[in-house]
Amino acid sequence: MSKNGLIGAVEAGGTKFVLALATHEGEILARTRMPTNTPVETWPAMRTFFDEASTKHGPIAAFGVASFGPIDIDSASNTYGMFTTTPKAGWSGARFHDALSAFGAPIKVDTDVNGAAIGEWMAGAGQGCRTLAYTTIGTGVGTGVVREGCSLMGISHFESGHIVPPRNPTRDPFVGICPYHGDCIEGLACGPAIERRWGRSLDQLGSDEVAIVADYIAHLASTLVLLHMPDRLIFGGGVMKAPGLIEAVRRATAAKLNGYVQHPRLDAGLESYIVTPGLGDDAGITGAIELGRQALASK
Amino acid sequence: MSKNGLIGAVEAGGTKFVLALATHEGEILARTRMPTNTPVETWPAMRTFFDEASTKHGPIAAFGVASFGPIDIDSASNTYGMFTTTPKAGWSGARFHDALSAFGAPIKVDTDVNGAAIGEWMAGAGQGCRTLAYTTIGTGVGTGVVREGCSLMGISHFESGHIVPPRNPTRDPFVGICPYHGDCIEGLACGPAIERRWGRSLDQLGSDEVAIVADYIAHLASTLVLLHMPDRLIFGGGVMKAPGLIEAVRRATAAKLNGYVQHPRLDAGLESYIVTPGLGDDAGITGAIELGRQALASK
Repeated sequence: MSKNGLIGAVEAGGTKFVLALATHEGEILARTRMPTNTPVETWPAMRTFFDEASTKHGPIAAFGVASFGPIDIDSASNTYGMFTTTPKAGWSGARFHDALSAFGAPIKVDTDVNGAAIGEWMAGAGQGCRTLAYTTIGTGVGTGVVREGCSLMGISHFESGHIVPPRNPTRDPFVGICPYHGDCIEGLACGPAIERRWGRSLDQLGSDEVAIVADYIAHLASTLVLLHMPDRLIFGGGVMKAPGLIEAVRRATAAKLNGYVQHPRLDAGLESYIVTPGLGDDAGITGAIELGRQALASK
Repeated sequence: MSKNGLIGAVEAGGTKFVLALATHEGEILARTRMPTNTPVETWPAMRTFFDEASTKHGPIAAFGVASFGPIDIDSASNTYGMFTTTPKAGWSGARFHDALSAFGAPIKVDTDVNGAAIGEWMAGAGQGCRTLAYTTIGTGVGTGVVREGCSLMGISHFESGHIVPPRNPTRDPFVGICPYHGDCIEGLACGPAIERRWGRSLDQLGSDEVAIVADYIAHLASTLVLLHMPDRLIFGGGVMKAPGLIEAVRRATAAKLNGYVQHPRLDAGLESYIVTPGLGDDAGITGAIELGRQALASK
């Protein structure tokens, strides 16, 4: 099969799947979305889409998948591409390879946040970066770190949301909502934590609340700098849409680093260092297409 | 030049240089140490050692350097191998390539802590790991993360010591000694911080003090898990020699992670996950030899 064959791309979210058939250059030839039911329904529907699209446009050379989790993303593992202990009914033990192996094409599977990070690196706010950290602050908090287009991992994908930041209990006495850690960054700064603490979303609150949340996000930002030294940090997700938040995160991060890391990338106000996403809702499917290209290149 | 040629290895510390000529397999044929003076004296002395050792044993195919810093370790940079803003008199602007390029062999330069990490990965407590994090807690605090034998970096090497951990001011009111951040991990847990706070070194103090220091180190350990997911964490350096400290770090890290990361590598007591170094004083020069091999392989 040619290295210029078609790419099947899957963005698998907890509520919906986005599927696309694209050229190797990234042009989308067919696209659909469907609800995330159980694999008994979702796997055949996914196969049908790719069957029909392939009949019309040509054979599929590789698949790229950016998925919700927890899922095994270690290509050296026997359970690569398999959902592990997700509470989502029916999905534990389901494996993308079961649904897609009939096409006889290589499959690369990564997490949703890594997929969005790769998408932003390819075509969004991370273009030109060697190392990019993309963080989503939404229902949960997670970070994908991309080095020259590939996501980094160790024995598992990263779990940045569970870092516990320094606290000031006078300023913010909220105990956090993480069932494992209480007041980790996810437990303090994700959308549900903000709703639980103040009864509404951050975009309906004032600058004091924004500053409190910004301080926790800035702890994550400065820790990402010290442990990955990215060329740029992108912060996306629903919480980041609150007015003034990205600016407050920049100010708090600059205060925390306090000039210690000297590099032209870290401009004075961090305006070009800490940014919002460039692709919006298309980051995931763009990253999935790139994962398909990577599957093909490493075949 | 053959891929099996001889390797010139340099472990450059703030007080002494260790030099070795080794076979590609790592057998050391000649070795010396000399004080770290200024480059005006150290560069010619280093050249003389490698000249004489090469005359006796054969041509040098590559150099590996593990050095104190700050130093540019980005092989794509114009100032690769050059000391940047070190306060050490005479060393700012000095470059290993000035001293070694006469040999006409490729040179790979990395930091001292990355070198020790690579050494431990090669032949010490990190053998068999895909991802290894090696941290030294001594005069300063630093971490090298190695993935399949190569150190990770971004726009610079990592700076793990400057992460600010959560504090309990009732338990430990010390404000820290870091000129940039006050109470970052280095500012609280390095050897000089312990001396300043309690008037003696940690091995002469009791279990209360050990537990306080262990808690800061465990914050670094858990953050390394969440942002790099290594197969193993090694903690070395002078402070780690305090009796009971590694055990206290294991307990505190397990309490912080609280079962969130489920993987066979993280055994119940973390006894095989958080360990002390295997090579002792030989980690640096072992890593420098491996850096020379990498220079040869990527030539």
